[in-house]
Amino acid sequence: MSTIDKNADVMTLVNVFTVKPENQGKLVTLLTDATEQVMRGLPGFVSANIHRSLDGKRVVNYAQWKTEDDFQAMKANPEAGRHMKAAAAIAEFDPIACEVVESISADTFV
Amino acid sequence: MSTIDKNADVMTLVNVFTVKPENQGKLVTLLTDATEQVMRGLPGFVSANIHRSLDGKRVVNYAQWKTEDDFQAMKANPEAGRHMKAAAAIAEFDPIACEVVESISADTFV
Repeated sequence: MSTIDKNADVMTLVNVFTVKPENQGKLVTLLTDATEQVMRGLPGFVSANIHRSLDGKRVVNYAQWKTEDDFQAMKANPEAGRHMKAAAAIAEFDPIACEVVESISADTFV
Repeated sequence: MSTIDKNADVMTLVNVFTVKPENQGKLVTLLTDATEQVMRGLPGFVSANIHRSLDGKRVVNYAQWKTEDDFQAMKANPEAGRHMKAAAAIAEFDPIACEVVESISADTFV
């Protein structure tokens, strides 16, 4: 379980993968393995939350790192690069580095 | 604060807005107002988490609804439609209906 909190000291990476529906399951497995085997052990990793789109055409990874430097260091890591190349072989992706500005829940006291 | 939990009984809507950097702040305000004034009062609303990209070119709304029917009903709501039209006037958007399949944290026990 992960939390989205505008006061948390993390950066967020929303990565939207576009994939053929027949490869969606394979991509989910690939990203899960990469996270468990590599990303999770790297400095500054906070969380990765992998989503499958209901139409089969996308996978969204909502990931959190302590700092943008940690995220950049991950991208330069050869093991991480090997996994990302495998993802790139079956999907296009669009990584968006961002920060939470508002978090509104049904039970938020206004 | 919101939680991402693969066992939670919610559907997730990741909406990626592409915007001119000079309109990013305006779009954040528009989405925040729409959430507080309209979405938050609709049946099945769980949370909306609005993010600004660090490069100024995107806004990402990570939203949760109890069911897809609740989300579809929101889209048919005239008040919600008015806000979404205002967003569409300054941004393109790509809503992705999805579900969490894996959530891995640094402190997850393996």
